Amino acid sequence: MPRLTIDNINQHVVRAKYAVRGELAVKSEAYRAKIRQGNASDLPFDQVISSNIGNPQQLGQKPITFYRQVLSLLENPKLLEHEDALKNIMGYPSDVVERAQWLLKQVGSVGAYSASAGVPAIKESVAKFLERRDGYVADPANIYLSAGASSAVNILLHIACAGPKTGILVPIPQYPLYTALLSVLDATCVPYYLNEDANWGTSLAQIKEAYEKAKQSGIEVRAIVVINPGNPTGASLSDSDVRSVLEFAAQEELVVLADEVYQANVFIGAFHSFRKVLYDLQKEKPGRFDGIQLASVHSISKGLIGECGHRGGYFELIGFDAQVMEQVYKYVSITLCAPVIGQCLLELMVNPPQPGSPSYELFQGENDAIFAELKRRATALYEAFKDMEGVECGEPQGSMYLFPTIHLPTKAVEAAQKEGREGDEFYCHRLLDATGVCIVPGSGFGQVEGTLHFRITFLAPGTEWIDSVKSFHAKFMDEFR
Amino acid sequence: MPRLTIDNINQHVVRAKYAVRGELAVKSEAYRAKIRQGNASDLPFDQVISSNIGNPQQLGQKPITFYRQVLSLLENPKLLEHEDALKNIMGYPSDVVERAQWLLKQVGSVGAYSASAGVPAIKESVAKFLERRDGYVADPANIYLSAGASSAVNILLHIACAGPKTGILVPIPQYPLYTALLSVLDATCVPYYLNEDANWGTSLAQIKEAYEKAKQSGIEVRAIVVINPGNPTGASLSDSDVRSVLEFAAQEELVVLADEVYQANVFIGAFHSFRKVLYDLQKEKPGRFDGIQLASVHSISKGLIGECGHRGGYFELIGFDAQVMEQVYKYVSITLCAPVIGQCLLELMVNPPQPGSPSYELFQGENDAIFAELKRRATALYEAFKDMEGVECGEPQGSMYLFPTIHLPTKAVEAAQKEGREGDEFYCHRLLDATGVCIVPGSGFGQVEGTLHFRITFLAPGTEWIDSVKSFHAKFMDEFR
Repeated sequence: MPRLTIDNINQHVVRAKYAVRGELAVKSEAYRAKIRQGNASDLPFDQVISSNIGNPQQLGQKPITFYRQVLSLLENPKLLEHEDALKNIMGYPSDVVERAQWLLKQVGSVGAYSASAGVPAIKESVAKFLERRDGYVADPANIYLSAGASSAVNILLHIACAGPKTGILVPIPQYPLYTALLSVLDATCVPYYLNEDANWGTSLAQIKEAYEKAKQSGIEVRAIVVINPGNPTGASLSDSDVRSVLEFAAQEELVVLADEVYQANVFIGAFHSFRKVLYDLQKEKPGRFDGIQLASVHSISKGLIGECGHRGGYFELIGFDAQVMEQVYKYVSITLCAPVIGQCLLELMVNPPQPGSPSYELFQGENDAIFAELKRRATALYEAFKDMEGVECGEPQGSMYLFPTIHLPTKAVEAAQKEGREGDEFYCHRLLDATGVCIVPGSGFGQVEGTLHFRITFLAPGTEWIDSVKSFHAKFMDEFR
Repeated sequence: MPRLTIDNINQHVVRAKYAVRGELAVKSEAYRAKIRQGNASDLPFDQVISSNIGNPQQLGQKPITFYRQVLSLLENPKLLEHEDALKNIMGYPSDVVERAQWLLKQVGSVGAYSASAGVPAIKESVAKFLERRDGYVADPANIYLSAGASSAVNILLHIACAGPKTGILVPIPQYPLYTALLSVLDATCVPYYLNEDANWGTSLAQIKEAYEKAKQSGIEVRAIVVINPGNPTGASLSDSDVRSVLEFAAQEELVVLADEVYQANVFIGAFHSFRKVLYDLQKEKPGRFDGIQLASVHSISKGLIGECGHRGGYFELIGFDAQVMEQVYKYVSITLCAPVIGQCLLELMVNPPQPGSPSYELFQGENDAIFAELKRRATALYEAFKDMEGVECGEPQGSMYLFPTIHLPTKAVEAAQKEGREGDEFYCHRLLDATGVCIVPGSGFGQVEGTLHFRITFLAPGTEWIDSVKSFHAKFMDEFR
């Protein structure tokens, strides 16, 4: 009789859901293993395409040269003893060598623990980046380096959640990290619906309604999560949406947790950081926004850099009091520090080569090519959806995903029920089994009852897989019509 | 009025203690910053020595060449296009190039997320290492790659702890990660004292007493933590100590959580893994140990590799049922995966160059030199303690620490009380203020009431700092005699 069983372990963990790497992802990995073992003659496809997760470099995106040149020197500083060969044979520009030398001076060795909240000089670089981006000075003491945005959100929710009575407003649909962590922490998720009809923007009416309902049932709502640009929706919030969230947060004394990891992935309009809009509002309406607490999160995993395997990111705390920040420091200390090479990569991301520097041209060219390619693929997928019966999709705005609505025939919904599945889940399983394309059903992110969606990344190269999705879809609709 | 205050945030976090990076460490970083800014003429020392934490490369230990050569190629695979220059100018042996090519084939890019539980081929390497080490086959499916041992323990305790009634037996003194996480998880720490008189070995009597006492007060004790070699004690457990813990765990159906991160740091005797002893016992006494659940943890942070900044490690689960392992998988999925470059470094650690391979000689020489140097420094520090009034210290056995008893004069204890501090804490503050040497008071790890200790790493190079500790100590004793 084993000591730990499904019935006696932490039930908050048992109840947590995380569909992005759930049953479908596990099945897709099993297919991938079969193909690798040359044992897949019974499968109707010869490769698995993981469109369930924003993992650019798994799908062939090449790392940006400047970043990786610097990292190679940080990992083996002895290469710096051969500066001539580095420059003349390996093609390392002088600014790569200089940056590596500077970073090594700051970190000592990338094999040493850094300070708990991150390497001080890297926090200074982040602060300068924030100032350039928003036009408002940032204090490095408010910046904490983390092992990616997931880790940052984990830290912030661990501090903010004090039990089942703590409510956190979470957009629906949402990236399921939020609901999963709230379940682990036994806090209450207060869902507010995004407005699909307005390109998945925030709706103040929805937020208020959710807030009031939670308050009436005795929940102390203390924070609102906003994902901008949106995941899974891809939505890029307007300045006025951001303002209205901040107005509401100020009025109700809510902490704002702004997940801004897709800030470089905006195709339509511009990115409006909560930080900039908050400081704008503080200037425009003195006094009214002074007490607000804003935590914003960014990462090296997304954007055009796409270095998720390196697990790097940061969060900035604005308006938090010193005693709470001490607790954040202690909490991050317990797991010592974020990966130091990931911290260095973050430094490179926030402090890229500037015009006139030897690396600039190649760096900018690579960035522009990745951006153009992402936009091209997003458009190709969007065009394909327009042709697909029962699929409705807004124009791609940003992030790495499309989140179309799908209208399934009644027979398909019935067939799903027979398998004990939601309709969208059923559809995703069928798609994976037929094409090797792995996507995530809308139910994994939350959706208005009676609607069905799926999230798909537009990262995979080529168009054959899009054709295979189209052809699967036509057959599926015929089968259940 | 800020929304989050020290009074309304997660009180389980507020109550957690983590002295290794606590007040003393914060003060030492402030001293270090003063020195860096050239603003330290009022300090009686010109460098800060962080002997509070096992951070070898911060204290000048050089990374091992083979590891870093491979990592540099993983970070910038384009270097592989210049194989001649790599070999002839940069001095990269052929096995470095081959290993990098093999790892790149396994991971794709180190910038991509891996599978949640780690890169399958790296888990296979870990399994082979365990088989070579213990003589018993390991199943890669039972192995999970993590961001260091701290992350592994965090995962395991999150699964095992189901609320305040869950008790976990923790050795005292202990590495404070355990008590801190139990506090965060609102589970109950059930402390059992190690036996200082028997070189800090485990005492079955103490374990039983602690267990029974907890049981009587309604606690469901479900796991026992053992740190071997010990932290902070440095103790290397005998085969019979390991056996008696396993016998007791089998009898009471306790999960064994074996923290074995210092397994390569053993100066006296040999390392006995819980895994090997368990399998030995299962052979010797068929049936009796079949139901036992063992989780063991290892890391790239310690040993001779000392690559803590890379945040890599693994845990292996033996005897856990499939449903529980599914929950572990889901839980690790929520934060996506361990840093991939850290996973690769783990692969290098568990699969080092073999005799006859081009890198072997240099690799082995570097390892031997680090080991000899650690032992030499441990001995030098131990010899110094022998000369110091009121300090008692056992012979160095392993890990990176000494944990001497210190007998303070009554006047010193009174002076400490006036400052609202424990005696050991008072001593450590005085030491830091006088010498720049940062150590951790025994109260940060737990100690028998009425005794005082401190933990000090023997990683810092040179002997001047040891002299400064001796000279401080003599003055301190004179002051309070």
